Amino acid sequence: MDEMSDATPGPNEQALLEVCRRIVVPDAEIERQAWERLDALTKPPRSLGRLEEIAARMAAVQRTLRPEAAPSAITLFAGDHGVVAEGVSAWPSEVTFQMVGNFVAGGAAINQIARSVGAELVLTDVGVAADTSVFPGVVQEKVRAGTRNMAVEPALTREEAAAAVLVGVRTVERLAARGVKVIATGEMGIGNTTAAAALAAAYTGVPVSRVIGRGTGIDDVALAHKAEVVDRALKLHRPSASDPLGTLASLGGLEVAAMTGVFIGCAAERVCCISDGFISAASALAARSLCANAYSYIFCSHRSEEPGHSVALVSLELEPFIDLGMRLGEGTGAALAIPLMDAACAMMNGMATFAEAGVTERPDE
Amino acid sequence: MDEMSDATPGPNEQALLEVCRRIVVPDAEIERQAWERLDALTKPPRSLGRLEEIAARMAAVQRTLRPEAAPSAITLFAGDHGVVAEGVSAWPSEVTFQMVGNFVAGGAAINQIARSVGAELVLTDVGVAADTSVFPGVVQEKVRAGTRNMAVEPALTREEAAAAVLVGVRTVERLAARGVKVIATGEMGIGNTTAAAALAAAYTGVPVSRVIGRGTGIDDVALAHKAEVVDRALKLHRPSASDPLGTLASLGGLEVAAMTGVFIGCAAERVCCISDGFISAASALAARSLCANAYSYIFCSHRSEEPGHSVALVSLELEPFIDLGMRLGEGTGAALAIPLMDAACAMMNGMATFAEAGVTERPDE
Repeated sequence: MDEMSDATPGPNEQALLEVCRRIVVPDAEIERQAWERLDALTKPPRSLGRLEEIAARMAAVQRTLRPEAAPSAITLFAGDHGVVAEGVSAWPSEVTFQMVGNFVAGGAAINQIARSVGAELVLTDVGVAADTSVFPGVVQEKVRAGTRNMAVEPALTREEAAAAVLVGVRTVERLAARGVKVIATGEMGIGNTTAAAALAAAYTGVPVSRVIGRGTGIDDVALAHKAEVVDRALKLHRPSASDPLGTLASLGGLEVAAMTGVFIGCAAERVCCISDGFISAASALAARSLCANAYSYIFCSHRSEEPGHSVALVSLELEPFIDLGMRLGEGTGAALAIPLMDAACAMMNGMATFAEAGVTERPDE
Repeated sequence: MDEMSDATPGPNEQALLEVCRRIVVPDAEIERQAWERLDALTKPPRSLGRLEEIAARMAAVQRTLRPEAAPSAITLFAGDHGVVAEGVSAWPSEVTFQMVGNFVAGGAAINQIARSVGAELVLTDVGVAADTSVFPGVVQEKVRAGTRNMAVEPALTREEAAAAVLVGVRTVERLAARGVKVIATGEMGIGNTTAAAALAAAYTGVPVSRVIGRGTGIDDVALAHKAEVVDRALKLHRPSASDPLGTLASLGGLEVAAMTGVFIGCAAERVCCISDGFISAASALAARSLCANAYSYIFCSHRSEEPGHSVALVSLELEPFIDLGMRLGEGTGAALAIPLMDAACAMMNGMATFAEAGVTERPDE
C-alpha cells in the first residue's frame, strides 16, 4: 500500500487532511488554571482523583474554566462488513439492518441508556448493506453498501475510507453548531470486531492473537478461524504505519472510519469525545495515526471484555473510568461516562473554595 | 468485651435486634425471572456484563421485574472522633463542624454531585462535637458530641452504638415511606479513617498494616503513628468476632454506626443501598456481622484509593463499578453509581426482546 500514499490525494483525502491541519492541542494554560481552582476547593487536594482530571481536561478542551457536559450526544454509525462472508461472526449480516430498525423503534440498549443519561442519539447509515431509508430518522450518509471482503481485496478504496471519515467529521460539525459539548462514539456492524482486530494489530504492531476475541459470542473453533482470516488480510495488504488512511481503507469498516471522523471532528470543534469499546478504540488508533493532535480530545469510558480493547487502551495510554465487563458496543459504555463527566463539571463549577466556605485549610499547607 | 454480649441487651440493642430479625434475603425467584427477561433482550446474552447483574439484583431487592433507581437519596452523617486527640489526622476536629456548614450552604463536593445525579441529600448530625443546630436543615440526631478516645477507653457504650445504628435505620424508614428506591451512604468525620481501620481489622482479621492509610493526607511519620494508635486500641479492647455491636462500640464512629444502620434499614425496607469508600465499607462489615441477610442489599460503587477499602471489599466480596482513584468520602463515590443503576433499570425495563423487535437470534441458539 505504501506507493498509494505517494499518489496525489483524491478530493476526500484532501478535505480530510485540511481538517487535520487545523487541529491544535487543548489549552495548557486553561488546564493549569483549572488545577489551581480544583486545588482551592473544599476537599483534601486531589482527593477526587481522576474526577478532577476529567474536569481539568474538559476545561482545556472547551477552553473555559466552566466546562460543561450538557448537551451531550451519542453518534451511532451502522455499517456492514464483506469479511462476514468468511464466517467470522455468530450472527448474519442482516442483523445490522434489523438493529437499525430496532434503534429507530427505541428498543435497543443504547436507546434506553441514552434516555437515562440525557443524551441525544444520532443514528447514521454510513454503510449498511440494505436500504435503511425505509426507517424514519436515519441520517443517510451511505458511502457504499458494506465493505468488500478484506480477506480477498481491500475493504475500501482510499477515497471511500476518507469519505466515511468525513461523514463522522460532518456529524460532529452539525452537533457542535447546536452547542453540543460532549459526544460519545457508538457503532453497529456485524463483523466489525474482525475489522477492529485487524486495525488494532496494524496500528499497534501487536500480534493478532492478542487482539482477537469472541465478539458477539463465537466458540473456540470460530475464534481460531477468525484469527486466521485477520492474519490472511494483514499478509495480503501489508498495512504500513506510515500510511494510516491506506491501513483504514484496506482493513475497512465504514462505521469504524466514521467514528475516526468523530474523534477528528471533535478535536477540530473543541468538543470532548468519548471512546467506547474495542471498535471505538480501533477508530481512536486510526484518528491518532491520522492526526496526532486529535488524541488529546479523547476521553475514555469503560474497559470492554473484548481482549483487544485493553491492548488498544495501553497503546492509547487511556485508563477506563468504568469496569462493568460490557462488550455490546452501540456506544453503551461511552454513554455511561456522560454522567461522570457531568458530575466532574458540577464539582468544579459549583464547589466553594476554603476561603469562600470558611473551612480551615490543613495547618501544614 | 465478650462478657458484655451475655448481659441483658439495653432497649436500643433490643430494638436493633428486632429490626435485624425481620430482614430476609432478596427474592431469588424474581431474580431468576429478571435473568430470563435480560437474556431475551436484543443484545448478545450477558453482553452488558455487570450492568445486567445490577438490574437483576435491583429487581430481586425491590421484588419487581421493573426495578427503579429514582427517586434516590444520599444519606450523609457527620460525627467527631475522640481519637483525634492522638494526632491521627492532618485536619483539626472543628473541620467536621465547618464542613456541615459547607454542606448546608451547598459548597461541598457531595452537594454538586448529588445535584448532578438527581439525588436528594439528607444531612444528619449523629455526633458532631459542636452544635450544628446553628445551621438550618441539619437533621438533629446527636447521640453524643463525638466519640471517646478509643485508644484509652471504649469509644461508645453498647447503647450509644445501638442508638447511632438506629438513627441510620430511621433515616431509611423516612425515605422509604416517601418512595425512595436507592440510597447512597456518605459520611463526614475528621479522624474516621482511624476508626474505620480499627473496625476493618477487627471484622476481617487482617493486620492493621494492610488497612491503614493516609486518610485526608498524612505523611509517613503520622502514618506509622496512626497504625500504632489503632494497634493500641485493638489490644486494649480485644474486639470479638462473636460480638459485632461490642466491636462497633469500642472502636466507634457515630457516623460509622449510623451508616451501618442505613445498610440494615435498607435491607429491612427492601431499598437498594450503595456503599461508598473505606468508612462506608467498615460500616458494611459491621452491618453484615450484625445481620448476615443485610449483606445482599449492598451495591458497590467505586474503589477508593484508601488501601483498607480494597481489603474490605475482598472480605465483602464486592467488586466496584467505578475506578477513579477517589478518596474524599461524603458519599461522592456512591453517588456516582446512581446513574449507572438508573441506566441498568432503563435497559431492563425499556429494551425490546428479539421477538418484539423482529431481530434474528443467533442461529446456534
